[in-house]
Amino acid sequence: MNKSNAWTAETVAIGSELLLGGRLDTNSLFIANCLAASGIELRYKTTVGDDLSDMVTVLKAAARRVRVVIITGGLGPTVDDLTREAVAQATGHRLVRRKAALDEMTARLAQWGRTPTTSQFRQARIPSGADILSNPVGTAPGFALVWNGTFFAALPGVPREMEPMLREGVLPRLHAWMPTQKVKPAMPMIRRVLHTSGVPESVVDQKLAGLVPQKSSVQLGIYASPMEVMVSLTGPAGAEGSVVLERLFEEANAKLGDIVYGQEADTMESVVGRLLNEQRMTLAAAESCTGGLIGHRLTQVPGSSSYVDRVVVCYSNRAKIELLGVPPDLIDRHGAVSAEVAAAMARGIRERSGVSVGLSVTGIAGPGGATETKPVGLVHVGLDGGPGQAMTKEFRFHGGDRSVIKQRASQAALDLLRRWLLQNRLA
Amino acid sequence: MNKSNAWTAETVAIGSELLLGGRLDTNSLFIANCLAASGIELRYKTTVGDDLSDMVTVLKAAARRVRVVIITGGLGPTVDDLTREAVAQATGHRLVRRKAALDEMTARLAQWGRTPTTSQFRQARIPSGADILSNPVGTAPGFALVWNGTFFAALPGVPREMEPMLREGVLPRLHAWMPTQKVKPAMPMIRRVLHTSGVPESVVDQKLAGLVPQKSSVQLGIYASPMEVMVSLTGPAGAEGSVVLERLFEEANAKLGDIVYGQEADTMESVVGRLLNEQRMTLAAAESCTGGLIGHRLTQVPGSSSYVDRVVVCYSNRAKIELLGVPPDLIDRHGAVSAEVAAAMARGIRERSGVSVGLSVTGIAGPGGATETKPVGLVHVGLDGGPGQAMTKEFRFHGGDRSVIKQRASQAALDLLRRWLLQNRLA
Repeated sequence: MNKSNAWTAETVAIGSELLLGGRLDTNSLFIANCLAASGIELRYKTTVGDDLSDMVTVLKAAARRVRVVIITGGLGPTVDDLTREAVAQATGHRLVRRKAALDEMTARLAQWGRTPTTSQFRQARIPSGADILSNPVGTAPGFALVWNGTFFAALPGVPREMEPMLREGVLPRLHAWMPTQKVKPAMPMIRRVLHTSGVPESVVDQKLAGLVPQKSSVQLGIYASPMEVMVSLTGPAGAEGSVVLERLFEEANAKLGDIVYGQEADTMESVVGRLLNEQRMTLAAAESCTGGLIGHRLTQVPGSSSYVDRVVVCYSNRAKIELLGVPPDLIDRHGAVSAEVAAAMARGIRERSGVSVGLSVTGIAGPGGATETKPVGLVHVGLDGGPGQAMTKEFRFHGGDRSVIKQRASQAALDLLRRWLLQNRLA
Repeated sequence: MNKSNAWTAETVAIGSELLLGGRLDTNSLFIANCLAASGIELRYKTTVGDDLSDMVTVLKAAARRVRVVIITGGLGPTVDDLTREAVAQATGHRLVRRKAALDEMTARLAQWGRTPTTSQFRQARIPSGADILSNPVGTAPGFALVWNGTFFAALPGVPREMEPMLREGVLPRLHAWMPTQKVKPAMPMIRRVLHTSGVPESVVDQKLAGLVPQKSSVQLGIYASPMEVMVSLTGPAGAEGSVVLERLFEEANAKLGDIVYGQEADTMESVVGRLLNEQRMTLAAAESCTGGLIGHRLTQVPGSSSYVDRVVVCYSNRAKIELLGVPPDLIDRHGAVSAEVAAAMARGIRERSGVSVGLSVTGIAGPGGATETKPVGLVHVGLDGGPGQAMTKEFRFHGGDRSVIKQRASQAALDLLRRWLLQNRLA
């Protein structure tokens, strides 16, 4: 056993399909934040297929290296759902049909006018001695047990079932169990996050050089992805600790300045939406190379119908002329990918829709469409907020495929809008 | 050591930011497919932060349970990039600055008119005895070594660097090494994939009941996600094996019928694009609740500018009236979310843009906007291909958030278009 004398955790995601990737994992951040607030650090994340012996191998390895294991998935009613068997086998328990689990499942199904099927009875077979965790949303109960000094919780993989079960079922049991263990007391941690846009990781790194003293208990993290560079500060949550963390957070925010677009769970589209709402403004967008991604992102925000009036994706020149009133000779003279056309698109969409502000993007997402003077990744963004309030900006995005260029172009356009809305608020 | 006498593999992804999820993992499918074709089954996927001792723990655990370990990430020039140190420490090698690695890096940087920085020198420090793997795209060399009967390869995490290095550097070395090992000969496997849309997992399961005989060497996998149910058949690649697999694949395809929209790497948008191209048709779409997602998906396909003319996102009723010519009294009588308005939207976008076919979506993505008779998840899709070629379809999507409803509505609309294009081809 090489478990350290500290509160560490591992997540184990069950499912052969997960081994192949291609799905967005939204559970880890939620689990990591819940655990961090309890003083437990997420150190490993393991994925394993629906193979009983592989699952047992993984659970045993986790028990050797961490104090807390959060398992997601494999609790369904089919023969492929083997989490119950795997935990029982790894920890030397028997599976027992538990009346409490069965009753709850039967009651939930009755609400929907159904009765348990034979295969659903499997879901009530829980390792003996384990605590049953109620599922307030679905039929699969979870469970929690302690083995060899490690706390195991098994939860469904679906976020809207997993999240309340972790919060209401797992955390209280974990908090009651932790003080009984001979591990140094947990140090609850806080994590603060800033999101920046428009500059590379190296610039963020430089701006924050020397922010956190060498022997500080606060850790700085800088993470780059195609659309942003994220900055995190993690430190002890106690009264004194949170003052230190808060001061560093404010300092980081000040050092980074206007490249910071949001905090914590903010997205660029939620920030822009908030600013539009605040100023009671409406928005219309005219997209070319982003192909609808700006509209899609804006409308991911609940309530966006109060400020998004319309979006038009004008892939053809004819559509640019008909829907936005872009003069044909402007396209002839400067090309569809030009500052001039971006400006005309933004003005056109604003005037025709009667909104407060028009936003436009035209560019070359590739792989085709490049010319000698206009390479893949060239993007012009336009904004028109009425007379005297028009601007365009040129971007050259290097080293990404079509999908990455669309992402970066949409981010650049929304960031231009964000900056204009901020200026406007001050004016 | 509990390694089985079979060719099994684990991927190890390095990076503290990866522990938090939120990013699409596109490496695993590529690695899994390359390994399967070599007769090696991917069994575990582990993610670990930039902590040297955690990395060593993970690498040692992997060496105990599999024969092949593919490590991605942690090869950059910063002090956080510890993959080289971790592999050296886990396998008992020293790190040595290797001239071949340094020379290649220097040559690559020279092409870009640069010279190595001090921190980049770190990238040439490779475990003694390891093979250096050329990086044809970036500066970080990879490496491969064998320890305790397990083959380790360390590659960058960026797909466009990882993929050629795996194919050209790792696989040839792996193929040369495998026959020297006392493990039962590898059985190269083939994986065939079908994508279905519009029916739940249980229906696919039922349709395929009895397809694969109990003792077959072929494995059937059925995987549900919000937008589709995917079916995979995996079996031995040899001459005889591939005949069996191919026959089962054809049988599955026939049993599933028109719910199959594609094979292998097909996406709904690439299939629709192919059908439109084939029939030299053009498309315009009018979106409401999907907010631009249909446009975004259509334009993810390279070359989509040849058939996508325009997309309009009409979030406001006014936009529906102005841009699509939906009669205001139609909205008054039936509501914006109705079959009547979906039909008018599809006809409007087709007539105004002069394309071959118009597609429309109107619905309630939630969380707000529901009424007593129109719940969240109610979606009407419309298609108009000219006189006598108009249709609408109603969907009720349960149990998903705004984002999931948008995804499912976009998939339903594109699937209606796909079916119409198929009919049209036969007619």
